[in-house]
Amino acid sequence: MSKVFSTSLRCRLPALLFLFQGAVLVIFALFVTYDEHTDAASQPADADPSANQVYAIFPFFQDIQLMLLVGLGLLLAFMKGYGVSAVACNFLLANFSTQWALVVQGFVHYGQHGRVHLGLYNILTAEFAAVTVLISAGAILGRTSPIQLLLMSLCEIPLYVACEWLIVSYFQAVDVGGTITLHVFACYFGLGTSIALYRPGLQLGHPMETPSYISDLLSLVGTMFLWVFWPSFVAVLAHQGDAQHRAVLHTWLTLSASALTSFATSSLLEKKGKLNLCHLQNATLAGGVAIGAVADMVISPAGAFALGIVSSLACILGFKYMSPFFATRVRLQDQCGIHNLHGLPGIIGAVGGIVAILLVPDEAYGPRLHQVFPQRGLLPLNVTLETTLVGQNVGRSATQQALHQVAGLGVSILVSLVGGYFTGLVLKLPFLAQPPDQVCFDDALYFKIQESTENSSVEQARGDLLVPLKDKA
Amino acid sequence: MSKVFSTSLRCRLPALLFLFQGAVLVIFALFVTYDEHTDAASQPADADPSANQVYAIFPFFQDIQLMLLVGLGLLLAFMKGYGVSAVACNFLLANFSTQWALVVQGFVHYGQHGRVHLGLYNILTAEFAAVTVLISAGAILGRTSPIQLLLMSLCEIPLYVACEWLIVSYFQAVDVGGTITLHVFACYFGLGTSIALYRPGLQLGHPMETPSYISDLLSLVGTMFLWVFWPSFVAVLAHQGDAQHRAVLHTWLTLSASALTSFATSSLLEKKGKLNLCHLQNATLAGGVAIGAVADMVISPAGAFALGIVSSLACILGFKYMSPFFATRVRLQDQCGIHNLHGLPGIIGAVGGIVAILLVPDEAYGPRLHQVFPQRGLLPLNVTLETTLVGQNVGRSATQQALHQVAGLGVSILVSLVGGYFTGLVLKLPFLAQPPDQVCFDDALYFKIQESTENSSVEQARGDLLVPLKDKA
Amino acid sequence: MSKVFSTSLRCRLPALLFLFQGAVLVIFALFVTYDEHTDAASQPADADPSANQVYAIFPFFQDIQLMLLVGLGLLLAFMKGYGVSAVACNFLLANFSTQWALVVQGFVHYGQHGRVHLGLYNILTAEFAAVTVLISAGAILGRTSPIQLLLMSLCEIPLYVACEWLIVSYFQAVDVGGTITLHVFACYFGLGTSIALYRPGLQLGHPMETPSYISDLLSLVGTMFLWVFWPSFVAVLAHQGDAQHRAVLHTWLTLSASALTSFATSSLLEKKGKLNLCHLQNATLAGGVAIGAVADMVISPAGAFALGIVSSLACILGFKYMSPFFATRVRLQDQCGIHNLHGLPGIIGAVGGIVAILLVPDEAYGPRLHQVFPQRGLLPLNVTLETTLVGQNVGRSATQQALHQVAGLGVSILVSLVGGYFTGLVLKLPFLAQPPDQVCFDDALYFKIQESTENSSVEQARGDLLVPLKDKA
Repeated sequence: MSKVFSTSLRCRLPALLFLFQGAVLVIFALFVTYDEHTDAASQPADADPSANQVYAIFPFFQDIQLMLLVGLGLLLAFMKGYGVSAVACNFLLANFSTQWALVVQGFVHYGQHGRVHLGLYNILTAEFAAVTVLISAGAILGRTSPIQLLLMSLCEIPLYVACEWLIVSYFQAVDVGGTITLHVFACYFGLGTSIALYRPGLQLGHPMETPSYISDLLSLVGTMFLWVFWPSFVAVLAHQGDAQHRAVLHTWLTLSASALTSFATSSLLEKKGKLNLCHLQNATLAGGVAIGAVADMVISPAGAFALGIVSSLACILGFKYMSPFFATRVRLQDQCGIHNLHGLPGIIGAVGGIVAILLVPDEAYGPRLHQVFPQRGLLPLNVTLETTLVGQNVGRSATQQALHQVAGLGVSILVSLVGGYFTGLVLKLPFLAQPPDQVCFDDALYFKIQESTENSSVEQARGDLLVPLKDKA
Repeated sequence: MSKVFSTSLRCRLPALLFLFQGAVLVIFALFVTYDEHTDAASQPADADPSANQVYAIFPFFQDIQLMLLVGLGLLLAFMKGYGVSAVACNFLLANFSTQWALVVQGFVHYGQHGRVHLGLYNILTAEFAAVTVLISAGAILGRTSPIQLLLMSLCEIPLYVACEWLIVSYFQAVDVGGTITLHVFACYFGLGTSIALYRPGLQLGHPMETPSYISDLLSLVGTMFLWVFWPSFVAVLAHQGDAQHRAVLHTWLTLSASALTSFATSSLLEKKGKLNLCHLQNATLAGGVAIGAVADMVISPAGAFALGIVSSLACILGFKYMSPFFATRVRLQDQCGIHNLHGLPGIIGAVGGIVAILLVPDEAYGPRLHQVFPQRGLLPLNVTLETTLVGQNVGRSATQQALHQVAGLGVSILVSLVGGYFTGLVLKLPFLAQPPDQVCFDDALYFKIQESTENSSVEQARGDLLVPLKDKA
Repeated sequence: MSKVFSTSLRCRLPALLFLFQGAVLVIFALFVTYDEHTDAASQPADADPSANQVYAIFPFFQDIQLMLLVGLGLLLAFMKGYGVSAVACNFLLANFSTQWALVVQGFVHYGQHGRVHLGLYNILTAEFAAVTVLISAGAILGRTSPIQLLLMSLCEIPLYVACEWLIVSYFQAVDVGGTITLHVFACYFGLGTSIALYRPGLQLGHPMETPSYISDLLSLVGTMFLWVFWPSFVAVLAHQGDAQHRAVLHTWLTLSASALTSFATSSLLEKKGKLNLCHLQNATLAGGVAIGAVADMVISPAGAFALGIVSSLACILGFKYMSPFFATRVRLQDQCGIHNLHGLPGIIGAVGGIVAILLVPDEAYGPRLHQVFPQRGLLPLNVTLETTLVGQNVGRSATQQALHQVAGLGVSILVSLVGGYFTGLVLKLPFLAQPPDQVCFDDALYFKIQESTENSSVEQARGDLLVPLKDKA
């Protein structure tokens, strides 16, 4: 494809990263200061230290970081010779994207009088933005250079921030766990990019595209990390108290239903009923994607459970029937199947949210209606919370809220697909160290892989393809 | 053994799981609603959100989930070609058992006016029940189909719930970390099942029964996860405050003593003093099993330390001398040595609890006697806590409490052994996809293992045995 | 080197460990009791259970344990045939050192009226001491027997406790995250030991000293664990409230800057711009080492960010230019490059702290000056906190504080280097089972490695060297 261009990262990757770090440092020095939770000087002398915001966020934050860097890193490491790239590029991209989101969100959301105020909360919301990029990258894993991935992040983060503002602040759509703003957006952005980067030469697959025994096992362990900590991800931005408790409960229920449904469906669809690890690695998490749109709503335990069943069914059917169709007919390569894990369950979750808004009576929320739906149960300013009658619904009707949810979902899909496609066109620029077809999915292209003295099996597999590329110590 | 029966999971596993998920969904829809911590409508408008029960449970809960799915999963993945099955079946069984326990415990413990009230606390106690099944499965790992494991769970969970009620609610035995109700029960249930499933054909071992270098290393990493988070497991159900603090402290001390004692003992017993990884993977955790029965009692730091030393000694001696004896004389195959890790230390812990109850004077508990022993230090209803004199012992004497502990231990061993044996007989039914002897301990039987183009060493080892079973892509 | 001496651990390791466990048990039984947070009898009846100290420590404590046992264990497991030793010896050494530190610190810090008072806080500070030993061991990894490592711990822990008392209590230097007392001390102690244990026979390297594909990947995953949980390690001993929040925030910022700078620098320095995994595994953590000295100071987000950039630059330049120089000219073998990860960034962090003390005006600390610098902003005893004017600086001037920091850094380097060297001389005693040159870096020397029936690639690599040592089952 672009064999004539160099794939060396030297100069280009350092230049991009050093420039970026320098720019972030200058911006921090000029514009960024502490927020009211981290600033020593502005603390009232009688402040209760245990009430500092850090304690409400930090445990969730650590869980989420482990999900992203260990869980997602290992999950992506499913190919036999691409594990190091998966873990390391995921780590690189997560940090780059979070820093970039810190800057963009800082000026958009947290700026006052020309100063950006910084605390752990900003880093948390910036990591949510970064997750978008990590998911999108799943569509083009192994077919792109680190430089291309960073460039994608540069384009995607501002678009995510704008789109999230449109959905959450302008439409006031409700999406506490990021189903619409994050998963759906990330999926269609990634697919848009992948369409632009379509490679006919890889349509019939690549010998390095398969897992090894160990890489498959490590990827499954990555799924375990994601599965365990997913409730933290969904619940962290919910209101403290019963809303956060519901979010945790619903997420666990939906994930557990997804887990068992995945085993059942995989066995049903595969030859001799053998369980397909790719299904288990992905579809067991599908409910977690869907639940985000409804996590703090009063959907009942049964509702959360049903959502998990439907999501994982859709995910596996997507892997079985939709991905091959996409690859052959739509000229769309989706390396990790993000459309099956993030697109389909994301849309299911968004639709589930609309159904829940229309079906669940306001009485089920009692005094929490306004908390879950900021545009509903609005109170006249002179009425205190204590005197509010349950069900006193000022503001949007349920139908109006539902229509705003529909608008949010539509915007997310449309903006991301178009934005992703144009980003993909940018990524085709010739000097971005894009790997040629025959050395895709290979750690040895961008990493100095220190090899054993004898040929390992990984080596032997590479042997035929990589002779001119080897970089033995 | 049962070579004439099909080992295909197709139809049978999906049918069982879809039926189960459908039944759980119907039960949830008809009977399950929110509890007072998750129900929005019933929240008082002035409720302190940070006092919601979720914050007292969730950090422990996440630790425990990581223990079970990553720690235990990896620990069980010690065989060279059975790592995928270990992690995946552990995951399957954990979810199936927790859901089933949610239903059973829901109706037994949390039902009011025909409705089951659900919050994170229920999921926590249901996971304790699920741990029982995961431990029991260790006795028959690699010799059973997923369908058999699920059937075992269907039988074991109700028996566990009944037995736990008998021990904790009826006898009012004290067992905050589940030593008697969980570890001892799980061990003898598993051994009972294993006796019924005895396979003469495997008495001399199986070529796939050994670890590879990487599987041994990953299993050791699994031990690290279990070791690190074990204090959360033991302490989560202790009373908040000093009792929970003692539980954490005691568990750390006992685990640390177990760790060093394991290194010492293993080196002493092995040829040339070489450390045996099987000992390190298991006996370093033995103290954690034992401490559960006494974790919140005032046993002194030295007591906890001594318990760790004795437990790990017993565990390693069990692996060295008792397991071979069982395998050859008692026709009892204990694949993971659960009798050494859960049976012996469990009994040691239970006996330790009895000794502590008899030896520690009531004064050592001060105002906490009633908290640790609900049947001791009982107060007349019109006396408030503030006016209670320390040591005013109303209710059971120490001896009476000790006798109830003995009764609890006896019931746990007896009920589980008999229940396990009959469950094992059920598992011998011919249509449960039980693997024939020669393809035990092999991932490729129930999983679609995507293999490298060249033969990996795992493949070569399988070659001789599995030719008729291969399912190459 | 010492081929004539036996390398068998039998008798020696068990004797040392059983003696040690017996001694600890006797000391616990005679001298150790509960502290005010764990003692049931002394609890006031109206104590708020949720205010128990355990809740302020436990979440951080668990994170740190995971860092040490999983994160550091895997990071050290980078050599192809030394992964089991890395994880297991790290685990052994962590427990031995923590217990030993519990005893030493108990009598020095927590003793009252001849009794040591024990709670989770003691275990936390003892683990900080243990970290010192684990870091130092990195310098001599693979060239020492477990017995030598334990002996090193016996020498290092008391010296650490003394040195830390000198720096923190006597000089009142500020070092909330242990940069000076822990990282710098550990590094130069390890280097001192390594100088004494210099092996000319290994100067040209050893065939087992290289990573395999999988060991490199697992080591990178270890880095992820360390990276994710590093903020917990730095912040746990900071004052609750805004100080702890700042520590978390600064640590994340510095680590993130280190991460991106590491990718940039590694690509710049390596042939064809290929990323060097050794750089990524280490230098991405460099900022975390440096930030400890300034974590709760008001250094501004930009300051933390800059520190991360400089530290990781220094770390990679150290690996590239300093380590080879040390190995060839100074006769100093630093197996894991601890001077690059702990020495250089540690000194940078200490110097950064001095600069921050001199440059940041007292007003930036407001009412927190005394909290961050116990010897500054001192209050007359009859003035309550509420009436204090901001900036009322009683006690040391900034310059005085800075001079005490310099003294602390100097003491740490000097004491550790000398202490380490003499410890190294002790470790050369002939009966400590030291491995001869040709079987260094080999799990099979001290561990019973259960090998596959066919030769794995690890086996083949060992074949030439280890024939006389094999211990096949």
